[in-house]
Amino acid sequence: SVSHYASKSEDRNAATPASPFYVNQGSRTVSRTALSNSAYNNSRLGFRGTEDLGGGLAAGFWLESPITNDDGATGLANFGRRSTVSLMGGFGEIRLGRDFAPTFWNDTVYDPFGAVGVGANLISSASLFNPTGGAGTFGGNANYLRVSNSIGYFLPAGLSGFYGQFMYALHENDSYDPGTATPPGVNPLTGQLNSGAVARTRAGRYVGGRLGYASGPLDIALAYGSSTAADDYFAGTTDDVRTANLGASYDFGFVKLFGELSRVSRTRDYAVSPLIALPDTDLKGYLIGATVPVGPGLIRAAYSRVKYDLNAATLAAVPDPTASKVSLGYVHNLSKRTALYATVARVSNRNGAALTVGGPAFISTSVFAPRTSSGYDFGIRHAF
Amino acid sequence: SVSHYASKSEDRNAATPASPFYVNQGSRTVSRTALSNSAYNNSRLGFRGTEDLGGGLAAGFWLESPITNDDGATGLANFGRRSTVSLMGGFGEIRLGRDFAPTFWNDTVYDPFGAVGVGANLISSASLFNPTGGAGTFGGNANYLRVSNSIGYFLPAGLSGFYGQFMYALHENDSYDPGTATPPGVNPLTGQLNSGAVARTRAGRYVGGRLGYASGPLDIALAYGSSTAADDYFAGTTDDVRTANLGASYDFGFVKLFGELSRVSRTRDYAVSPLIALPDTDLKGYLIGATVPVGPGLIRAAYSRVKYDLNAATLAAVPDPTASKVSLGYVHNLSKRTALYATVARVSNRNGAALTVGGPAFISTSVFAPRTSSGYDFGIRHAF
Amino acid sequence: SVSHYASKSEDRNAATPASPFYVNQGSRTVSRTALSNSAYNNSRLGFRGTEDLGGGLAAGFWLESPITNDDGATGLANFGRRSTVSLMGGFGEIRLGRDFAPTFWNDTVYDPFGAVGVGANLISSASLFNPTGGAGTFGGNANYLRVSNSIGYFLPAGLSGFYGQFMYALHENDSYDPGTATPPGVNPLTGQLNSGAVARTRAGRYVGGRLGYASGPLDIALAYGSSTAADDYFAGTTDDVRTANLGASYDFGFVKLFGELSRVSRTRDYAVSPLIALPDTDLKGYLIGATVPVGPGLIRAAYSRVKYDLNAATLAAVPDPTASKVSLGYVHNLSKRTALYATVARVSNRNGAALTVGGPAFISTSVFAPRTSSGYDFGIRHAF
Repeated sequence: SVSHYASKSEDRNAATPASPFYVNQGSRTVSRTALSNSAYNNSRLGFRGTEDLGGGLAAGFWLESPITNDDGATGLANFGRRSTVSLMGGFGEIRLGRDFAPTFWNDTVYDPFGAVGVGANLISSASLFNPTGGAGTFGGNANYLRVSNSIGYFLPAGLSGFYGQFMYALHENDSYDPGTATPPGVNPLTGQLNSGAVARTRAGRYVGGRLGYASGPLDIALAYGSSTAADDYFAGTTDDVRTANLGASYDFGFVKLFGELSRVSRTRDYAVSPLIALPDTDLKGYLIGATVPVGPGLIRAAYSRVKYDLNAATLAAVPDPTASKVSLGYVHNLSKRTALYATVARVSNRNGAALTVGGPAFISTSVFAPRTSSGYDFGIRHAF
Repeated sequence: SVSHYASKSEDRNAATPASPFYVNQGSRTVSRTALSNSAYNNSRLGFRGTEDLGGGLAAGFWLESPITNDDGATGLANFGRRSTVSLMGGFGEIRLGRDFAPTFWNDTVYDPFGAVGVGANLISSASLFNPTGGAGTFGGNANYLRVSNSIGYFLPAGLSGFYGQFMYALHENDSYDPGTATPPGVNPLTGQLNSGAVARTRAGRYVGGRLGYASGPLDIALAYGSSTAADDYFAGTTDDVRTANLGASYDFGFVKLFGELSRVSRTRDYAVSPLIALPDTDLKGYLIGATVPVGPGLIRAAYSRVKYDLNAATLAAVPDPTASKVSLGYVHNLSKRTALYATVARVSNRNGAALTVGGPAFISTSVFAPRTSSGYDFGIRHAF
Repeated sequence: SVSHYASKSEDRNAATPASPFYVNQGSRTVSRTALSNSAYNNSRLGFRGTEDLGGGLAAGFWLESPITNDDGATGLANFGRRSTVSLMGGFGEIRLGRDFAPTFWNDTVYDPFGAVGVGANLISSASLFNPTGGAGTFGGNANYLRVSNSIGYFLPAGLSGFYGQFMYALHENDSYDPGTATPPGVNPLTGQLNSGAVARTRAGRYVGGRLGYASGPLDIALAYGSSTAADDYFAGTTDDVRTANLGASYDFGFVKLFGELSRVSRTRDYAVSPLIALPDTDLKGYLIGATVPVGPGLIRAAYSRVKYDLNAATLAAVPDPTASKVSLGYVHNLSKRTALYATVARVSNRNGAALTVGGPAFISTSVFAPRTSSGYDFGIRHAF
């Protein structure tokens, strides 16, 4: 698709001039127009299959690559979207490998835009954005979207509308006996240096699940997960990102309504409590949305809002950063596989939040603060 | 295929000894024998398909990877050869993604060797070679062969033999408001440093087209394109590589003749004209060739020649570097899909040109200057 | 599969305390549990096909990628497992590209565990392990498993049970005329610097073959190969890794027996003999094993042992490092394509050998020496 993004920063002090001589420097905008991909569905290509083993048992595999069809730069270099082997039967499904985190499903299933493109759920955008600057995700959680080395279990169908899944992912780090058998790095207790790359010993683990109920027009699901984002063997700290969310949709026929509530917390556990512990950082958000079928087309609309709680231990009251987003789009289906679509969206930031609809980052200096980001997508979706 | 390359450098002063005591140091050769791939057709693997949307409309996709089947090192890591989605109808075809540049087609279609292997069109070799040393292409043009983020339009069939295409490719760089909203780097006017990786603001854009006529034994086409190879926001300069070429072939049955004329210019545009502007560099070339069918086989022959015009502002006359190439080959078809082939070729360089048939670079020191490069390919082509 | 590895190091001096005050520091273990792949068969995905050319001739291709289905990190980025084009006929098969080294076949065919997973043949593990520490393989041999740029010939079927193959692989390095046309680097004779990356001129070459006889329950094969692992143009040295092995299996029906003998030597050839030449390093090993079919399952067992001969020129006798391995496993076939399996294995090291069953390396300090490594795999194999 062709996408346009504009990130507008405004004068930090414009609203409250510091002196009568204050000159409002107005706003600065960085914009970009791109032939992008994945604005309606994520571009993907893969292989999958199932084998009937008899006796109600079946085995299956699913390998799926993300691809960038605008420039061809990413082919089938990895199966990062999904890479699983399954054993299925009356007991449900055991699934091994790399798969979506259970906690991600509510962010995409109950978003009219499926957490994709300029219109995507702001809860999802904030989870993928590092609020303290730099690269990375909220809390450094590498398992927000998908989890590697996971063992998953899915409830079987036919439970009167109830469905559910549970996932445990191995961190695959080395374990050490006490004593000198410590990870690489300098052991502060003994001063002894163990050579080698400094290793993680707990980070990477994920445990979570999702339970839902779908019957007739109603679909509702609750999910919880905890992901170990980082750890320090010698300091005895472990950083977890804990996610809880609840989503629901109800299809009235002429309109389908969507809603989601989400809370994500980054917490640091200490083996030995310090005088001043790192405060938790919270990210709370909600989304309301609707889709309206119009002949072969579909109107999509959503409003989503997030609020950071930094829990900073300062004397002065620091207002919490917040951001909200309005998204509106239309999809025109030419066939089951091919569709034309267009989306417009706008994010408003306050108190230091710096979320965008995609595209270039804000100009964020002592003079200018992030304010609004707007953009549009239009393009063709072709599934094969 | 098995390929052998030899690059021979000769004594710079051999022809005009500087003194009676001059000792001709003769020549030095660097050679290499390799199990190579892509000496007859480029090795490739991909996925493609078309969907009939009814009403004369169709949608399609084409994903094609370059692969190196001699060592398996390159699999489907990227779809760099072609990665497009199309919408087709009576109006022609709209094609989005990564595709061949219109200006490349004449270099390959009117070359009996298809711009591949040791026999490839010297115009194509020179466009892919940096004449000032180092890596890269002529003028630093990254869009010589293929162009990413492009929007293409193709004329429909059935225009009495006329065919044509037009392509526009987005540079996808950030745009900036005036004032402090400048790209990363030091703004020389304000002395202000904007942090971040120094960004391009125009480089990457391509606009071009090709118009042709094919009827009976005749096929003739004209192409023109302009590619923005580099830019500097603060200096206000933009480097474009402009290509114009004309090719034709005529099939007499017992022999098919080929010809091409090409002119490529690297030019620098200045927002503010400097006292001494960087002169343009030109690359002019032509090719004449022929193929002769012999039973299930095909004899292929070509002569191609290029001349650089450096437009250097020196008092002394500097002769223009030139190079010429003779290529001869034979293809023996075992079936539609499988063929044995052999090619020999030789490039002669004068006045500092350093083009090869492939393989190792010349030894180019104060003593030795590049002179001739020769090589052969023989192998099997198997399409699947 | 889920795999667990534990590498245990013991007190170096525990057996011979240096003084009455000696305190035995016991042992230290590093362990890891992982959702792994490729513990029964290597995970792979690829493309292959054959074309009948008539007259008994056929052409074929085979492109096969290693994939990591536990984390999806490796997709079809390369066809490193196999990437070949073949021409087949009554004369046998000519195969070009990247393929298994003939000398590797005996290490895998006559191992009940197929040189895969925690139970793999210790001869194979030792060939893939650098005994002098650091990364790399025994003797730096990059061609132990597979060889790029190879030209292979296979005997045709129907030779009364005899089968065989021969392989030659081109090193693809540049060749140089004498004189100043030397590779990049400083020529010690002239002091002249040739710019560019320091090049290899011989390393990468492989020549080898395998001849066998299979009839009824008996299968026996002999292989020999020489791989050029490294070279230094100016010093005039060439390092070769020479492998000779003999394997056999005999199927009694209720039990199938396996055996292998192997000798690998790293030797350095000098253009000019030095006063003190680098001594050869040898690796000798053997394996005995058995498989017992039990209904739809198969019990697998093997004992393998390797011994290094460092040929060190020291006055004191240095005992040769040795290691031995016991492997036991069971495979339960759910269908032709799907199987459950479990394997346990244990490696014992003596005199400085540091081989593992996989997983983390030993803690190897002045206090602790590598001793035993143990592990297990259990999982599901699904072929598609």
